[in-house]
Amino acid sequence: MLLPHGPVETPVFMPVGTAATVKAVPQHIVEELGANIILGNTYHLYLRPGHELIRRLGGLHRFMSWPRPLLTDSGGFQVFSLSELRKVTDEGVRFRSHLDGSTHFFSPEHSMDVQIALGADILMAFDECTEYPATRERARHSLDLTLAWAQRSLTHFKAHQHEVPWHEQLGGKTQSLFGIVQGGMYADLRRESAERLIEMDFAGYAIGGLSVGEPRHATREVIEQVLPLLPADKPRYLMGVGYPEEIVEYAAMGVDMMDCVLPTRAARHGLLFTSEGRVNIRARKYAEDESPADPECGCMVCRRYSRAYLRHLFASGEPLAAVLNSIHNLAYYLELMASVRYAIELGSLPELVKRVRSRSADSAAREA
Amino acid sequence: MLLPHGPVETPVFMPVGTAATVKAVPQHIVEELGANIILGNTYHLYLRPGHELIRRLGGLHRFMSWPRPLLTDSGGFQVFSLSELRKVTDEGVRFRSHLDGSTHFFSPEHSMDVQIALGADILMAFDECTEYPATRERARHSLDLTLAWAQRSLTHFKAHQHEVPWHEQLGGKTQSLFGIVQGGMYADLRRESAERLIEMDFAGYAIGGLSVGEPRHATREVIEQVLPLLPADKPRYLMGVGYPEEIVEYAAMGVDMMDCVLPTRAARHGLLFTSEGRVNIRARKYAEDESPADPECGCMVCRRYSRAYLRHLFASGEPLAAVLNSIHNLAYYLELMASVRYAIELGSLPELVKRVRSRSADSAAREA
Repeated sequence: MLLPHGPVETPVFMPVGTAATVKAVPQHIVEELGANIILGNTYHLYLRPGHELIRRLGGLHRFMSWPRPLLTDSGGFQVFSLSELRKVTDEGVRFRSHLDGSTHFFSPEHSMDVQIALGADILMAFDECTEYPATRERARHSLDLTLAWAQRSLTHFKAHQHEVPWHEQLGGKTQSLFGIVQGGMYADLRRESAERLIEMDFAGYAIGGLSVGEPRHATREVIEQVLPLLPADKPRYLMGVGYPEEIVEYAAMGVDMMDCVLPTRAARHGLLFTSEGRVNIRARKYAEDESPADPECGCMVCRRYSRAYLRHLFASGEPLAAVLNSIHNLAYYLELMASVRYAIELGSLPELVKRVRSRSADSAAREA
Repeated sequence: MLLPHGPVETPVFMPVGTAATVKAVPQHIVEELGANIILGNTYHLYLRPGHELIRRLGGLHRFMSWPRPLLTDSGGFQVFSLSELRKVTDEGVRFRSHLDGSTHFFSPEHSMDVQIALGADILMAFDECTEYPATRERARHSLDLTLAWAQRSLTHFKAHQHEVPWHEQLGGKTQSLFGIVQGGMYADLRRESAERLIEMDFAGYAIGGLSVGEPRHATREVIEQVLPLLPADKPRYLMGVGYPEEIVEYAAMGVDMMDCVLPTRAARHGLLFTSEGRVNIRARKYAEDESPADPECGCMVCRRYSRAYLRHLFASGEPLAAVLNSIHNLAYYLELMASVRYAIELGSLPELVKRVRSRSADSAAREA
């Protein structure tokens, strides 16, 4: 995938940099870890520091000093999960900020304006994320809204795409707008969503509305249904997923892009992902454990620090705990996705999926 | 100054790594910034994770993966400033942990045992830090206690110095024990303290009991009185000081070593030290300021990030704010001390002192 700010090999895992920072990790380390694209959250950046400020400072790449590709979400998911008192009409969503209670309005056109101001390489159509569980009637209505908003997003984007802050600097290049497949857990609605979006002709397609509380087999079923419907020559992006064994499995099914807060959020809670499964670094048993977080990992944390030290930092509430745990977890995810790409070349992906799945099962058994 | 874990050029500023971490900064970055010796706090490490645990894991250097020299304080200052319900007798101090209220006892002998277990290159005699203000009678009594404890520290250290965790590994080298000059703000008591400690023959001498709330001219007077009394061929260490203009001034007066939490603590509160004076990054005026924190600084933060971005991180409560602000402030302090050493070679130290003092006055005027 060649984007205005550089190439991205797929399948790719995208670390989440919600507020213009991958939480607790300096940009040069995110780069060293091999992250070639990261995600910013439109809802957060719109509220603080504001998209107009970021536009005036040259866009999100320049603001946060991140030279590689970026993707912004539409703000839809965060409006639904974080904001208060939201009121959805055909026109858009009125909501209160979770920061200060102030009132705001997002429409598809406004989401495009905000995302064009931020200037990520990839932006997402404004959608309503259907909650789980949802009745068929509710999912139907939500899908209709999302499809109408997708068309309005596309129309507005086409009219304003040249306004991206780096348009001239990068020789007239523009952002890529992706559509988002919704439809809840209903196969026919998902199919209709995919078909209608493909007619509109987006630069890529995402599967949204998953990881909202449904059981994992339901997630898998939706992915299995939708993926074959999406054009193979455009990126297929599964939003907000997941655990290591999931990202490997979904990549094997054909997903090109995934993002998730899990590696960094889990890190801040002391949960490390390793080749031996999950390590809860808070556990007493690591107090004098001189081995690295992951004996098979070559990241800057595993090369230098012991589990005993990481446990001490976490137990002491030291800010370095979040820094080091996040670096390791990101290294683990990014390395895992690199091995997926390598396994695809070698034709050994099924073995990798199996191995990662068994690690995860082993560690679940150990923790139980 | 050649220590078991390497050489240290003086005058030197020592970043504080209280709980086996310079708060929020990974060790490889502390190294890159040029810190050649850092400090650990005996009181904190004794309470958590415990000195016996650190001894079993090979000592503090190995535990925290810090290959360069380390210094530990005696625990005295923290017992007096952090713990609860302390009861001082000739024997030692009984106190309650600020973490969990548990009861502990520190004597000179115990402080030595703890510091030998931690295994820093330099350890400090156990002292009572005289509070400010203190009557002459109180300062006299406190000094007598500290002198008795200094002798007991020395005697115990000599008998047990071979127990340091790296004794064999480093070919029989041992730690260096420093005595601490006390005596409150009384010139004759300070003199007596210095003379008595010198008779005992320590490897170095510290000036303690400053930065405890006294006015800056009083700090300066004590330093002026005490420094000429101390042997010039041994390190002279001023504890817990201070602002940039102070460390330059005191270095010019002949102090060889200083430590202070200020660069990292101020960083976590959004206060940056720069060649233009102090920058309070929280200020609204930096919201769209694309210049680096310090235009004259070449550190990894100033090379990459704008004040606008640093302000955004701080305003958003992002963990990266503490990381980047701390890196810059440490870079500023370490670079400043490097320019002191350079100015000493060139004979231009008075000009440097003047320049740094005027920066600080300028910025105080701007903030007022």
